[in-house]
Parts: sequence; structure tokens; C-alpha cells
Amino acid sequence: MEKKIRLGIIGIGNMGSGHANNIKNGNCPDIEISAIADNNPERLDWSKEQHYGENITYYTDAIEMLDSGNIDACLIAVPHYDHTVFAIQCMKRNIHVMVEKPAGVYTKQVREMNEEAKRHPEVVFGMMFNQRTNCVYRKLRELVQSGDYGEIRRTNWLITDWYRPQAYYNSGGWRATWAGEGGGVLLNQCPHQLDLWQWICGMPVKVQAHLHFGKWHDIEVEDDVTAYVEYANGATGVFITTTGDAHGTNRFEIQMDKAKFVVENDKLIMEEYAMSEPEFSKTNTEPFGSVKSTKIEVETDGKNLNHIGVLNAWADAILRGGKLVAEGKEGINGLTLSNAMHLSAFLGRAVELPFDEELYYNELMSRVATSQKKEKVTTVFADTSNTYGGNK
Amino acid sequence: MEKKIRLGIIGIGNMGSGHANNIKNGNCPDIEISAIADNNPERLDWSKEQHYGENITYYTDAIEMLDSGNIDACLIAVPHYDHTVFAIQCMKRNIHVMVEKPAGVYTKQVREMNEEAKRHPEVVFGMMFNQRTNCVYRKLRELVQSGDYGEIRRTNWLITDWYRPQAYYNSGGWRATWAGEGGGVLLNQCPHQLDLWQWICGMPVKVQAHLHFGKWHDIEVEDDVTAYVEYANGATGVFITTTGDAHGTNRFEIQMDKAKFVVENDKLIMEEYAMSEPEFSKTNTEPFGSVKSTKIEVETDGKNLNHIGVLNAWADAILRGGKLVAEGKEGINGLTLSNAMHLSAFLGRAVELPFDEELYYNELMSRVATSQKKEKVTTVFADTSNTYGGNK
Repeated sequence: MEKKIRLGIIGIGNMGSGHANNIKNGNCPDIEISAIADNNPERLDWSKEQHYGENITYYTDAIEMLDSGNIDACLIAVPHYDHTVFAIQCMKRNIHVMVEKPAGVYTKQVREMNEEAKRHPEVVFGMMFNQRTNCVYRKLRELVQSGDYGEIRRTNWLITDWYRPQAYYNSGGWRATWAGEGGGVLLNQCPHQLDLWQWICGMPVKVQAHLHFGKWHDIEVEDDVTAYVEYANGATGVFITTTGDAHGTNRFEIQMDKAKFVVENDKLIMEEYAMSEPEFSKTNTEPFGSVKSTKIEVETDGKNLNHIGVLNAWADAILRGGKLVAEGKEGINGLTLSNAMHLSAFLGRAVELPFDEELYYNELMSRVATSQKKEKVTTVFADTSNTYGGNK
Repeated sequence: MEKKIRLGIIGIGNMGSGHANNIKNGNCPDIEISAIADNNPERLDWSKEQHYGENITYYTDAIEMLDSGNIDACLIAVPHYDHTVFAIQCMKRNIHVMVEKPAGVYTKQVREMNEEAKRHPEVVFGMMFNQRTNCVYRKLRELVQSGDYGEIRRTNWLITDWYRPQAYYNSGGWRATWAGEGGGVLLNQCPHQLDLWQWICGMPVKVQAHLHFGKWHDIEVEDDVTAYVEYANGATGVFITTTGDAHGTNRFEIQMDKAKFVVENDKLIMEEYAMSEPEFSKTNTEPFGSVKSTKIEVETDGKNLNHIGVLNAWADAILRGGKLVAEGKEGINGLTLSNAMHLSAFLGRAVELPFDEELYYNELMSRVATSQKKEKVTTVFADTSNTYGGNK
């Protein structure tokens, strides 16, 4: 039998324990948990009781774990600011690394992580973009990028179903603070959609965003976002999100020259035109004419392997040179979008990409400087396994 | 039998002849056409052949018609710049007036029209906002304004199904020019939605719009719009429209404290919460908790009397003091929205309401000064009766 990958987990909070459960439950046959690090001794004790595997060593100091020789690969599931810190430490030790989203808080630090990754081509570096395994988005990407439907004209993602009540924000003093998370719904909830948006439609060249900070909750950071973007080909896009709407919407529409795609309720609807609109418009002589079209629900392979799929692909890449779901270096793209949205809101104007990363860092740090840990906090670890399945 | 209202029509183009047909076909029992004016003698001759009624007098000079004593009421269906010009002339002669949308091209002229209307309270002054008769939007307004669902948080209208091919723009030299229409999709196609948006949700206080001029067509004016607005209570909104998408979308969503409403495919879907979100968030202790909700399709009275309903309500107001579908003075609201969007795009920044009307006028006139009538024009009058039914 092939030797299993000895996995270390840094951070055994909501996400870390979710992954550990998947491994414990036999969903990741190539992986065994050999070490867990968490700087919260109580949480570490709690994790011992979960019996995530045989022969697990526990550390309150993650660096000690990385130096131990007990692990081949490391999963980083700590608060956002430390994602890049630990990823870089892993790379320096030739430890394969899987980073939870977001890649980091500001692109400057993620760029440093990516630079370090370049110096260690032997390290298999992945990002936990589990939404990329979703059959609907995979199919959508395939169709959009096929070249069969011309160019993108308009993208529109109304993703307002990330509801979080105040109790969520009160469940950790670091939550939704500039110092603790470095952002709100864009940094914590939306990295998946920001990644999918760019994965499917490419990166825009200009961003103008309207952010509202602590609008629906007693928090420092944004919980309401409307962003407008422009792409290099002149296409436009809108991204709207919030954690304030109890029963919001998740509707993603892409208008192309020869088809319209809508993803809603886990379905992909395609309206395909008999010919591309520009071609039709050139030849048609009827003032109120329009090109014929047919609307169908697109069939997909129905698979949505989610976090397990990301971990298994990573293991396959480590053991057998397989393909990752999301390469680590791609984490910077979605973060570039959210940083640009933040910067646009901070400055009150449109921001062109690439933006001034130093300026963004300084703007962010000025907020971190006055950031306050929430008091009246009830630290709660929750079983989040139902909060990121399906469309999340 | 009650005496019929003797109606004059100024402009017997696509819209004017549509209304004339409705009257000819017996849909407006209170109204008879007694005069038609059009400055295009060929079109006037054409209209004679349509036999819109007995004893119709024809005029190439509208003012002559207004001075004739042959009409009690006048329907204005000329290009947009002249709406206010003729409306004011009607009012000065105590002739009841119904103005096709938009109320005018710039709010300064519409304000003058409204001022004139104030001086003639006996004149029944209506706007052709036939979409207000639509059962779905009427019901939506009733629910939103009922007070049962708390405040509006977010409005979102994706109204990209106003497709027009190049042949449409080539069907009249004045079409889609600054001098001829004074705007594009916002002035010609969207006045209905802009009116409904404010009729249902109220007016915003700030507008930032991204307009693209001649993006999908060989025209001077905007054919692609993404606008962001903020309301006095802090709510936000987005309005996206184009005439470039062959099979676009018409989806209007309103998120409130205690319900979400979505109008799409002529259906009104309501998701109602067991309690308002702020109330829930205050009392709930579960980090991933959410308020219960139920989703239903809202029943309406099914009526959509459209243009006929607007004309008959106007006649009823004239003869019996009934209620108009849309008072003339309300036409300025939707135009204020489109002027603010234009101004925001011209200046490249957000515009607060009320905006500087003089500045807008000057910006517009500078574009009119260099505006060019389209050459290669095939003047076409089309039967548009299918282009503004239902949702349009």
C-alpha cells in the first residue's frame, strides 16, 4: 500500500475541525492526520477528545510542529492574517501546503507567499477553493471559456445569502475587526464567489465599490457591498453581497454575445442564440427584430466533491503528480478583487488594476491601528458543515 | 348619453397611432378622436387612411389644432424634447393633456411644465405610465408601502430585455441622437421602469452611474447603463439596463427587513420572515441561526389595462373627477433619476439629489451642439403593439 501523507493542521477551529472530520471519516484515503497545532490549549484539548486519528502529536506552537519532522503536508486554517505567515514557513521547510481561503488579507503579503512558492517548485501549494468543485460552476466555466458564445458583455452576481446574525460576530473577539480579519463579508464569506467570478469571467481592469461598514451589525468592517467592474474588452459587471439579509439571493448571470447563462438554485440555465447578436444586428432589417433563441437547463456531471475533493486532489498532486482544484498562486486573484473594492471604498473613487498595494496596505493598517477587539464575546465553535455546502 | 371627450393627438407616429387604434377599436368609450396633428404631411395623409374616427380634422401645425376649438383634451406623442412644449401650450388653453413618456428630456423643462400645470388646476394632466396598471407592480407597491415589512434595504432591477437592433436606430434620423432624443435607453425605453422604481421604492438621494455611449450600436447616446443609488434611510439600489442584449433579463428584487420580493416572468414572489431581521438578530443566540421564512407567489387581481387603462382613467378624471393612473407632475421623478444618471456619467462622479439642473442642461446642450442626425436612415413606422405590452 502506498504510504499515506502525514498531515499537520494549524488551527483546529470551525474549519480545521471540519477538515479533520472528513479525514477521520475515511473520505481522504491518501491522508492521515499526524499532528495538530492550535495556540488555544483548551481547543487543543478538545481536539484530542475527537480522536481524529492514531498517533497524533499536539502542539500549541505551530512552528514547533513544522520543525518536528512529523508531517509531510500542512493545512492552514487559522485567522486570515496568518495564512501567508504559516504558508511561507511550510514552504521554507518543503512541507506541502493547503491554505484556507482567503489567501491572505492584503495582496502584498500574498505576493510574498507566491514569491516563496516559486522558490520551492517541489512544494505542492493549493488553495481551499472548494466551490470550484461544484458541477454547475465547472460547467459554466467550460461553456463561457469554450469560445462558442463569443465575448462576455455583462456579469452580475447577486450573492446576498451569506446571512450572519449578530451572535455569529459575537462568537469570537477577532471576528469582523480590522485587526482580527482585515475585512468583513468580502474577506470571510465571499472569497469563494470572488474566486469563481474571476475563474469563470477573468479579472476586471477597473473597480468601483460602495461598501457599508457595520451597517447591519455591531462590527467594524463591511457587511454590505455593491461593486461595479469593467473588463479589458469593455464588458461590465456587478457584485452585490451582504451578511445582513436573512434570506438573500444567490444569482449569477453572464451575458455573452451568443448566449445568456444564469446560475440560481443550483441550476444552470442557458439561453442560446441562433447567431451572435452583433452578427444579427448587422444583417437584420426589422426595427423590432431579434435573433431566435432556445433556453435549456444545462446538464452537468452532478458532482460536487467540495472540501473533500480539494483535499484528495491535493493528495493526488503530492503523491502522483495529479492536478489541483486550485493552485495556491491563484488565491491572489480573488483577494485582488476584494482589496480593490476596499480601496475604492476607502478612497471614494474608482480603482484601476493593478492597484497600489502599498497604498492599500497603509490604508488597511491605519484601520488596524484603531481596531478594537469586541468585548461581550461568547467564544463559540460551531459545526459549520451546513454553512458551506451546496452553493457556499 | 354623456358627451364624449374630443381628443386631439399631436404626433401620429408609432405611439400616437397605437393609441388611435385603441380608441378606434372601441376600447375608450369616453373618447373620440376629433383632430390629429403631425408635422409630417405624408404621415398625416397615412393617418387619414386609417379612419380613426368620424369628423377628424387634420393639422400639420399642432398649435393651429390647439387654437381650433375642436378639442377638449390632447395626447402628446411627439419626440421627447417637444413633450413639455406642447403640454404647456395645452395648459395655457385649458386643454386637458396626456403626455407620453418621458415627461421631457431635462428636468428644468419639466419643472416649467409642472409650474404651468399648477396655474391651471382645472386641466387634467396625466402621464402615460401604462406600466403602473400592471397588476404585479401594483401589488408589489401595495406590499412594500404597507408598512408590514419594515424598511427597504436593497433594490435591484436588472432590466436588460429592451433589445433594439441597429435597424431600429436606423428607422429615424432623430433616434438615439443628443439633439433628437437627448438620451438613449434611459430616455426612450426605461422611463417606465424608472417611474415604477421610484413609485414603489421612493426616490434615492445619491446616484452614481456608469453609462456607455454607442457601445452596442452605431448611435450617439447611451445603450448600456449600470447605476448605483443610495436612499435616505441608507438602503442601496442598482439599476442595470441596455438595448444591446438580444435576450436580456427583467428581474426586480426588493429586500426589506421582513420580506424579500422578486418580480420576474410576470410573477411576484414573496419570501416573508417570521419576524423582522433586526429583531431576530437582537434576540437570537445561534451563530449560524436565521429567522424562519415562507415563500409564496403573491396573488394579484390579474388586471393589466395598460395604455387603455391610462386613457380611460384620464377620461374618467376629466368627466367625473376620477383618479389618474399617473399624475402629470409625477413624470419629473423618473426623469430626475435618468438626468442624475447622465450627469453622474458626464462628470465621472456621484451626484446628489436634487442635482444642479442648470449644470445638467449645459452638459446636455454641449452634446446637442455637436449632435449629428443619422444618415443612411430608412424611415420606418412600426406596429409596436407587441413591444410594450406585458412587462414593457
